[in-house]
Amino acid sequence: MPVKLTDIRAARRRIASGIIQSPCPESIPLSEITGARIFCKLDNFQRTGSFKERGARNALLRLPVKQRKLGVVAASAGNHALGLAYHGKLLDIPVTVVMPDYAPLIKITTCQRLGANVIVQGRDFVEARALADELSAKHGFTYIHGFDHPDIIAGQGTMGLEILEQVRQADAIVCPVGGGGLIAGLSLAVKSVRPKVRVIGVESAATGNFSAALKAGKPVLQPRRPTLADGLATLTVGANAFAIAREHVDEVVSVSEDAIALAILRMVELEKTVVEGAAATPLAAMMSGRLPQLAGKTVVLTVCGGNIDPAILSRIIECGLVTDGRLTRFTARISDRPGGLARLTRVIAECGASVKDIAHDRAFSGSDVSAVHAVCTVETRDRNHIKALHRALKKNGFPLVVAK
Amino acid sequence: MPVKLTDIRAARRRIASGIIQSPCPESIPLSEITGARIFCKLDNFQRTGSFKERGARNALLRLPVKQRKLGVVAASAGNHALGLAYHGKLLDIPVTVVMPDYAPLIKITTCQRLGANVIVQGRDFVEARALADELSAKHGFTYIHGFDHPDIIAGQGTMGLEILEQVRQADAIVCPVGGGGLIAGLSLAVKSVRPKVRVIGVESAATGNFSAALKAGKPVLQPRRPTLADGLATLTVGANAFAIAREHVDEVVSVSEDAIALAILRMVELEKTVVEGAAATPLAAMMSGRLPQLAGKTVVLTVCGGNIDPAILSRIIECGLVTDGRLTRFTARISDRPGGLARLTRVIAECGASVKDIAHDRAFSGSDVSAVHAVCTVETRDRNHIKALHRALKKNGFPLVVAK
Repeated sequence: MPVKLTDIRAARRRIASGIIQSPCPESIPLSEITGARIFCKLDNFQRTGSFKERGARNALLRLPVKQRKLGVVAASAGNHALGLAYHGKLLDIPVTVVMPDYAPLIKITTCQRLGANVIVQGRDFVEARALADELSAKHGFTYIHGFDHPDIIAGQGTMGLEILEQVRQADAIVCPVGGGGLIAGLSLAVKSVRPKVRVIGVESAATGNFSAALKAGKPVLQPRRPTLADGLATLTVGANAFAIAREHVDEVVSVSEDAIALAILRMVELEKTVVEGAAATPLAAMMSGRLPQLAGKTVVLTVCGGNIDPAILSRIIECGLVTDGRLTRFTARISDRPGGLARLTRVIAECGASVKDIAHDRAFSGSDVSAVHAVCTVETRDRNHIKALHRALKKNGFPLVVAK
Repeated sequence: MPVKLTDIRAARRRIASGIIQSPCPESIPLSEITGARIFCKLDNFQRTGSFKERGARNALLRLPVKQRKLGVVAASAGNHALGLAYHGKLLDIPVTVVMPDYAPLIKITTCQRLGANVIVQGRDFVEARALADELSAKHGFTYIHGFDHPDIIAGQGTMGLEILEQVRQADAIVCPVGGGGLIAGLSLAVKSVRPKVRVIGVESAATGNFSAALKAGKPVLQPRRPTLADGLATLTVGANAFAIAREHVDEVVSVSEDAIALAILRMVELEKTVVEGAAATPLAAMMSGRLPQLAGKTVVLTVCGGNIDPAILSRIIECGLVTDGRLTRFTARISDRPGGLARLTRVIAECGASVKDIAHDRAFSGSDVSAVHAVCTVETRDRNHIKALHRALKKNGFPLVVAK
């Protein structure tokens, strides 16, 4: 094993002055909707919005003086870049980050503002990584891998130690898996200190690096597929991370994009906290019935980061409202003569639903020119309310052409 | 004075077992954008999402046994109702809440789920209150006023004591003002214990109850006006609350709706926390330059609640993106022949902007039938990027008809 419990304990002392011991409060509303006693380890509260600072600071502090002066380089589209940039600045270590060109604009500009030398180049991670290696060879920068460097894994493990102290009665910890750095460090720490606590990994069904590696017995390259949990969309699980995690993780489950979206909405609504897709996967697993064995248990969800693009968050909230039955759309056939729309909207209002948007679709409404399709987006209470609305519309002579 | 420091200290001991001592972390990103050292007192983490539980639990626990058995009643469209319902259930005290009919659906159903007897009646607060008084007379329920009952004010004051312990170096506390219950209790606690700490109230420019009362020398009735800070939109400041607060509050400033919306977005983006409009007003005041005297000082923002309708949050995020220059809309005149749209979208893409939506406006495009208006919604980096985009469009022969 390249990492031992003593390394994690040492990392904890090493990084203590620069990392927030994030809170881990109990959540009554999340407990109510999942049937377990839920605690949330809120590492989205770290300065740069994710747990990645733990490993980054540890790796930077472990550098010999000469390497510190020369600086470090990493290829990353996301949180590792931010964590490295921030702690590099605090520790006066030059940081160069190569970001592939699909990196979100907001992460590029944030990384620059944190003081890193940012190079946007490469159509994918492999190309960005190649440039980073080149810079490393040319300038003597130390390359710091985002999830497979032993110092990174040891740093991430500190979250496990904190959780065990903060939730002494924990039965299980549910943790996202992408590259595997966090779950490797966390599971090693947790199983070494309190082996009875179950450690469960959650991956996005769209990526599935860890289960692919489990099946193959070694890390395998996976095609990059889009997922709301972009932080988990690495090309593969890390070799060191996998070697550690496979020994310590009890189980890995996967969650759908819909489940991730709904979990993000529930964190916003019920926990009043903003999470990125990866950080919502533990709640998604609990909510979508993937972990029935945890009913009634004390469960810690590792909320690993909060760096979600506000525009995406806004879309997810709207999609979540649709899933919840709190926003619905239907197309009704109405008379194109004066009063047609007035009658339709009266029926909707009498149902207690609230119209958010109405569009008229004339050209595609068929050949009866006295009628027109009205595409209505309406706020409702829940799915039963939608059914009642549909019934009322039909009863009042508005046949539904399309209804979701 | 109907409330004294000893009442607040007693309230703190009384409610301790049922209220979260909410965290009050430093926020480096908010400090960066405001130029002060910012701490956030996160009372949006309370079980029902707001500080109102403090007062509600204190008032309930202060009831004589006979009154406890009979139960309590309140008129409230929001957080007071939730706090009372929750703690009534915990303490086995029957709670009846009269909600005016404009109360958000989500608060009505949440209040029911928390176990209260909810009556939705009354076109405004006055009518709801009248019914509550009627029920009180008929059934012997004790009426608990949401912001003017001395036990409520004493309960809210506990937040001030916590802040003084959590941020010993605080120079100022910035606190929203609506009915005045929170700022009355908080300012009394803070000024009694550490008089040098400045207490600054923030109101929504759309309501302004407290400054109206200051001007008139007594509470005055204000018309209900819509504001994002719906928690502050009371008919008037409370008489007890005003009497206490006017003695202890150093200053009151007001903030615009735009400033509140942008502050909500910044809390989501930078602090990873979800706040309702009222809770965003302190940051709004800092960000919109209303408190220049706090530059460089240690400032605590009281984040009083997180109960924002997700649909509204989603809209606010999009409006905030517009204010930030990260989402823009313009109408360009393009040829209605094949290729017109292809050329327009190529220019936009070459600028590095990303099209989110395009609508064609034919009938209202004027009499030149070879041309059509394209209404484009586009993602941009910032305001300078928008300017560059406008220049590129003009240069390439796309006159802008309307541009925001």
